[in-house]
Amino acid sequence: MNSDFTFTPIGIVHSCFTEKFGIPRQPGLVPAARGSLEIFPPYDQDEAFRGMDRFSHVWVLFVFHDNISGGWRPTVRPPRLGGNQRMGVFATRSGFRPNPLGMSVVRQEGRRRTGGRFFLDVSGIDILDQTPVLDIKPYLPYTDRIADASGGFAAALPLPQLTVEFSDSVRPALSAAEDRYPGFSQLLRQVLAADPRPAYTTGQSGKTHHGLRLYDLNIRWVVEAQTATVLSIASGAIA
Amino acid sequence: MNSDFTFTPIGIVHSCFTEKFGIPRQPGLVPAARGSLEIFPPYDQDEAFRGMDRFSHVWVLFVFHDNISGGWRPTVRPPRLGGNQRMGVFATRSGFRPNPLGMSVVRQEGRRRTGGRFFLDVSGIDILDQTPVLDIKPYLPYTDRIADASGGFAAALPLPQLTVEFSDSVRPALSAAEDRYPGFSQLLRQVLAADPRPAYTTGQSGKTHHGLRLYDLNIRWVVEAQTATVLSIASGAIA
Repeated sequence: MNSDFTFTPIGIVHSCFTEKFGIPRQPGLVPAARGSLEIFPPYDQDEAFRGMDRFSHVWVLFVFHDNISGGWRPTVRPPRLGGNQRMGVFATRSGFRPNPLGMSVVRQEGRRRTGGRFFLDVSGIDILDQTPVLDIKPYLPYTDRIADASGGFAAALPLPQLTVEFSDSVRPALSAAEDRYPGFSQLLRQVLAADPRPAYTTGQSGKTHHGLRLYDLNIRWVVEAQTATVLSIASGAIA
Repeated sequence: MNSDFTFTPIGIVHSCFTEKFGIPRQPGLVPAARGSLEIFPPYDQDEAFRGMDRFSHVWVLFVFHDNISGGWRPTVRPPRLGGNQRMGVFATRSGFRPNPLGMSVVRQEGRRRTGGRFFLDVSGIDILDQTPVLDIKPYLPYTDRIADASGGFAAALPLPQLTVEFSDSVRPALSAAEDRYPGFSQLLRQVLAADPRPAYTTGQSGKTHHGLRLYDLNIRWVVEAQTATVLSIASGAIA
């Protein structure tokens, strides 16, 4: 019974999150984070998705493909705990696990065929671009929404919520980004409001410039008091 | 990106459900269904489960190992729809899917070492005995319990709820079963109350004897009106 099992991806994630930094620490936290699940042949049949519209949300089972070479350790440091407390890997959703399987709930936004390829559009995504998808299942409220579940450390900490502002000099770039990626301003606001900085830096203020990548855009910002101010938005390779 | 991924089970399920028939159609429906997840070395380290006690429920990611040879089809007939309506496989939780991955929430009942082996005891299980386990993750209420999710066909149908009675002649066998498997009477009551009969037979009444297996016990019962009456409980191989 200890034999291996091999799985073939049924598709791939297209997401605004082109690097790990900035990905919300939970799905649904950034509803403006849109993406799509491209379904490969032979799984891209309308029939295989018949009845899917009856569900508002779906589970995506995926591979933490970025972590595969990293292997696993018995304990990890969850970012939500400030990154300085070790927890057992099975008591976290960390991607560095014996079998690098991830699961995430996203909201369905419709299906389409574009250029002969089949896509499920979704929102509230927290999955890295180019992630291999192994399975899609409906979210069943009557069984997945457990009323009496208690949630451990993750629930105990309040979620950060920063105010987000844009420097005057960044307005033209923001406007250009919005043209290319409709909803970009809202996405960036939600991503930064959730304070993606590593926990060990959140005590710092001003001066330190932070950077993250959304689509092909590099964003730089500073945090002062509880306000994140965007300094630049530039396309191109990672600086 | 379309390359395969190979996973090694971290453990195996020990469950009262030694055959598929009778397994509740959703986890949590039969809270008396107890089982354990045996964790294999090198994953059986206390450290790897540090902090696990802070969560009431965990997700089990497993392989529908029974279905592997069966392959997949674009549509399946969910039992909750009476077994006569075809749905897209990705709009169901059916085990007959391109990648036979299953996910199920169970309640934690503690960890133990017995005979040098490491077990997580759980309840509310709906997984077949001997199922390979790929991963265990905490159930995070703040992200997994989606308040505004809507549920499709599955939610629309009321759950069956039969009255369960025991014939006089079955009492000694029931008592013996209870001695061997504490809580067995309650388990059997909950399993039969959920009416595990195939939907196409639920219109039938009396006469037809049904059978299912729990642990190493074969149970036979009849349904008349809304009452299931247990006729026999016998140990041994499947009749």
